[in-house]
Amino acid sequence: MKPVKVFLDESEIPKQWYNILADMPTPMSPPLHPGTGQPVGPDDLAPVFPMNLIEQEVSTERWIDIPEEVLEKYLLWRPTPLYRARNFEKLLDAPVRIYYKNEGVSPPGSHKPNTAIAQAYYNKAFGIKRLSTETGAGQWGSALSMACQMFGLECRVFMVRVSYDQKPFRGMMMNVWGANCFPSPSDKTEAGRKILAEHPDSPGSLGIAISEAIEDAVGDENARYSLGSVLNHVLLHQTINGLETQKQLKKIGVYPDVVIGCTGGGSNFAGLCLPFVRDKIHGKEISIVAAEPTSCPTMTRGPFAYDFGDTAQTTPLLAMHTLGHDFVPAPIHAGGLRYHGMAPIVSHLVKEQIMEARAYDQIQTFKAGVQWARTEGFISAPETNHAIAAVVQEAERAKEEGKEKVILFNWSGHGLVDLAAYDAYLSGKLHQYEMPEEEIARALQAIDGLPKP
Amino acid sequence: MKPVKVFLDESEIPKQWYNILADMPTPMSPPLHPGTGQPVGPDDLAPVFPMNLIEQEVSTERWIDIPEEVLEKYLLWRPTPLYRARNFEKLLDAPVRIYYKNEGVSPPGSHKPNTAIAQAYYNKAFGIKRLSTETGAGQWGSALSMACQMFGLECRVFMVRVSYDQKPFRGMMMNVWGANCFPSPSDKTEAGRKILAEHPDSPGSLGIAISEAIEDAVGDENARYSLGSVLNHVLLHQTINGLETQKQLKKIGVYPDVVIGCTGGGSNFAGLCLPFVRDKIHGKEISIVAAEPTSCPTMTRGPFAYDFGDTAQTTPLLAMHTLGHDFVPAPIHAGGLRYHGMAPIVSHLVKEQIMEARAYDQIQTFKAGVQWARTEGFISAPETNHAIAAVVQEAERAKEEGKEKVILFNWSGHGLVDLAAYDAYLSGKLHQYEMPEEEIARALQAIDGLPKP
Repeated sequence: MKPVKVFLDESEIPKQWYNILADMPTPMSPPLHPGTGQPVGPDDLAPVFPMNLIEQEVSTERWIDIPEEVLEKYLLWRPTPLYRARNFEKLLDAPVRIYYKNEGVSPPGSHKPNTAIAQAYYNKAFGIKRLSTETGAGQWGSALSMACQMFGLECRVFMVRVSYDQKPFRGMMMNVWGANCFPSPSDKTEAGRKILAEHPDSPGSLGIAISEAIEDAVGDENARYSLGSVLNHVLLHQTINGLETQKQLKKIGVYPDVVIGCTGGGSNFAGLCLPFVRDKIHGKEISIVAAEPTSCPTMTRGPFAYDFGDTAQTTPLLAMHTLGHDFVPAPIHAGGLRYHGMAPIVSHLVKEQIMEARAYDQIQTFKAGVQWARTEGFISAPETNHAIAAVVQEAERAKEEGKEKVILFNWSGHGLVDLAAYDAYLSGKLHQYEMPEEEIARALQAIDGLPKP
Repeated sequence: MKPVKVFLDESEIPKQWYNILADMPTPMSPPLHPGTGQPVGPDDLAPVFPMNLIEQEVSTERWIDIPEEVLEKYLLWRPTPLYRARNFEKLLDAPVRIYYKNEGVSPPGSHKPNTAIAQAYYNKAFGIKRLSTETGAGQWGSALSMACQMFGLECRVFMVRVSYDQKPFRGMMMNVWGANCFPSPSDKTEAGRKILAEHPDSPGSLGIAISEAIEDAVGDENARYSLGSVLNHVLLHQTINGLETQKQLKKIGVYPDVVIGCTGGGSNFAGLCLPFVRDKIHGKEISIVAAEPTSCPTMTRGPFAYDFGDTAQTTPLLAMHTLGHDFVPAPIHAGGLRYHGMAPIVSHLVKEQIMEARAYDQIQTFKAGVQWARTEGFISAPETNHAIAAVVQEAERAKEEGKEKVILFNWSGHGLVDLAAYDAYLSGKLHQYEMPEEEIARALQAIDGLPKP
């Protein structure tokens, strides 16, 4: 009987988050105010986020204490198990050991509550009564719904319409946790109505949904906006995952050669990887690979540039890899990976070649996901299948090179409410998709004239 | 930071199942051959089950070794965590401590793989190539699909039509694991065609689906039938759960006053409870409560009698609580609890007043389930909500009596693919349902003339 899981005792849960800003090897380009072109200050963000989270966003403290109230909620599912994927290894027949962190054991089934719980707590502590947010595949929206319920906050979720239609269960989940979920573009906001007037059949995008959620929040002094990825404080909260993983690996005396995660806005990937980035900055040899979809190739084909986080141009300008804030991706199923931008921290680390990005086609990712389900049992979220496709690629390379490797990846969530996507794949309804060059060029016109980092 | 979970190390997983037949205080009535009225022998069952499982079905050995190959697959998700439901306790504000075993962490999200893995292994070891089965809500069908895939067996699932329509995701899940799923009654079998000819709109029932699956299996010497509940060997495999729980409770020095589970065929309930029944037989004071739906009140309103396990009268006669083998329950959402009979072991223990049965209405169970999700986070299967309703009742009684109590229950599975049922509840589409007396009387005519236990 060979062991496959490494648990941590609840008492071993990390008590602090890790802030990569304390260890960045080169300075990051600051967010800019779109009007003045000057770096934004805390006051500029005050109508959008509570001040305690704004302070976290700009903090350069290396370790930030996790509040007791947040830890208590984390314990509902954390520490999550670290698994060895022995059956998948056998299938791949390559000289690799594959470890994965199972973030699917949380109530909504993904890594998202790591920051949802923290954000709900800090908003509550700041006296806020209501949060408004956007969601792609619905993992974020459902996580924030649960978190708001647990801290007694009202919650409104603007869900990208194509996902809202494809994944009705996510909206129902939000309702069970007491939130309201609207398809976006909606008629609830100026931003939504404007898009609907021009494109009544718009499938929506994260950029549009963000505009709606921000607009919905800033008009109400008791409300704030909440973002499920991209920002520094979100990535910070997710590091609980990488920190746990490091403790677990230490218990079994293993250190990875490659760390992999799928990337939409970058938070699950960063959550696992940033503590390993710290090791790398301090000299450790390790590859850190971000897996994105070919249908939304933010880092592999988008430039590193200043751009808005949303379509209505209401956010500060962020220095990041981007496909342009008007980008509306093809309606592929990995809804959580369909964002035009990428977390500034991740973008910066890719630019500095500390991390590496690769793109995978949806056919390739579902193939990997079905192989995974048939060996390891668990059915992965379509997003997570991008990471698994990267694992397969790494294993194939190891085999070719005849080199032993330890691969670690973030199993960011399960796909039990994404089964329609598997059904489409198994019945041959999905096709390969590569973004045409001219479409990328057209989308990038949106950043013409913006400042350069 | 108060602890909420108790883990077992993988090395602590029980290596044997517990067989209650070794400790039964009074003899059970044997299964009878419907033709001869005599107890069935192993040879009578040979076309239906492999001989190694038939031997297990009739074994009176107290401890039965779990094969290494089965343990290896169990480790994909076992040992499962034992939780303390502190947030739900706070909501109930009663002098109770509530512990629950989280069986929802398995790949299909329920306790069902505990026996699916074992049955697939034993069939494979016996040289069988294909399994055929029925499923209600789809939890069993998806678990067996996964297990067959892991042991290289083909799998066919007949799914009760009302659930097939209400829960399309379960069929998709079976496909991901490589199985074929048909709505039942189907045109694939004589039994199905006969029902369809008389009732083209039949919503189906577990009794009908069992008839179809048995017929599909016995015609093929390379195939066997597999049942996900009711039988002795199924309950045996599920005891891994109760045995783990006892180890976990021992670690924290706790022993329950009440043990609760929901009951359809009886397997998740028995899996948790039987090791505690053993303690009770040996003098321990403990209540053991089975929670069933008022729409299918097998134990609370059905007699203890000999009856067929299926509608087409192809199984041996089992001595059990039953509503009659023609019983077609109202299409409420807790599909897994809609079986006309009850495991003979559970029925016998209820008859002997070692266990107690109570019925709960669906409105009451969804109310409890939503309260649960909003405090503990996890969204329960509609079946599991019956157990939670019983927990609420126990807590209320403890409050009235001013008596401290430790409650343990089986959180048999999550409801992430059952969200349409929650949606129906939250939008006011569900109603209270009590089986009319005359309908029960009519259904029970089916057992007139059968032998009496």
